[in-house]
Amino acid sequence: MNRIAVLMIAGVTLAGIVVSISAVSGPTDEHADPIFVKEIPAGYRDWKVVSVAHEAGELNDIRAVLGNDIAIKAYRDGTLPFPEGAIVGRIAWRYEPSEENNKAFGRDQSFVAGSPTEFYLQFMVKDSKKYAATGGWGYSSFDQNGKPSADAAMTSCFPCHQKVQGRDYLFTRYAR
Amino acid sequence: MNRIAVLMIAGVTLAGIVVSISAVSGPTDEHADPIFVKEIPAGYRDWKVVSVAHEAGELNDIRAVLGNDIAIKAYRDGTLPFPEGAIVGRIAWRYEPSEENNKAFGRDQSFVAGSPTEFYLQFMVKDSKKYAATGGWGYSSFDQNGKPSADAAMTSCFPCHQKVQGRDYLFTRYAR
Repeated sequence: MNRIAVLMIAGVTLAGIVVSISAVSGPTDEHADPIFVKEIPAGYRDWKVVSVAHEAGELNDIRAVLGNDIAIKAYRDGTLPFPEGAIVGRIAWRYEPSEENNKAFGRDQSFVAGSPTEFYLQFMVKDSKKYAATGGWGYSSFDQNGKPSADAAMTSCFPCHQKVQGRDYLFTRYAR
Repeated sequence: MNRIAVLMIAGVTLAGIVVSISAVSGPTDEHADPIFVKEIPAGYRDWKVVSVAHEAGELNDIRAVLGNDIAIKAYRDGTLPFPEGAIVGRIAWRYEPSEENNKAFGRDQSFVAGSPTEFYLQFMVKDSKKYAATGGWGYSSFDQNGKPSADAAMTSCFPCHQKVQGRDYLFTRYAR
């Protein structure tokens, strides 16, 4: 599986991709440049938990989905669409068996967060004007060194997020 | 598997059990009453993430391990033992495949947080005097309605936590 396919999958539960979309301002076939968010939001590691998930297969990660205060409030209140300034992020670590825990359990059953994955951090940033062409969300993806994922790899996931347009493009539900 | 065994397993990566321990104050065989924490710490759902994990088998949960500010600071700084007032908690949800995500992926690989488990919330509360007999931590466990787990079921996990005495009895490591 190539990197683009992997990234597409990486993004599906949360974020990652902005497609090149047709400009809506003119009658021609002009394409607007995709808008990729290139900065990691400050303080994301302190954000509150939306939910957790495990992606098996090629991704093989375990992840925490977090939200800034605006996003968390909207999730808890059931506000749709999400307000301006909402940011939802996810951190993905390698999905690793814990020998230490398994020993304590006396059986193989414990899987924990290992080192950062290739698509370690992904965010969706709500700005309904700036990112109007992609549902009001700007998308981003970073490796563990904070390096944005290649633009070439950022072209295939928005159609996935469109599948949950009714939940404002967010796959992840708030875990109660 | 009976409930006690399940709870023992439930607690191993984080919390859950206080054993009846021998009183150290006298030469007799008197036993001190175990000290079970019966209150859910306020605001725990807003706490920061320590890590995430999946427990397969009987537990079949996916969990977020959180810490209050004192615990998070200690984790990040590598402070051992954890300071007074530190609380580490974990929320466990049923580990459920996400049909919606799998459809988007085009393959079965996505597992998400479902409804609360029987041992939904567990906490370790640091008070080195009050809980001196159990390594300075008080343990608690609650179902989704906030009902503490039965005392009878709270008698078998402290020996597990002792296996990681060198990390101040905490199995979960901070995920970076």
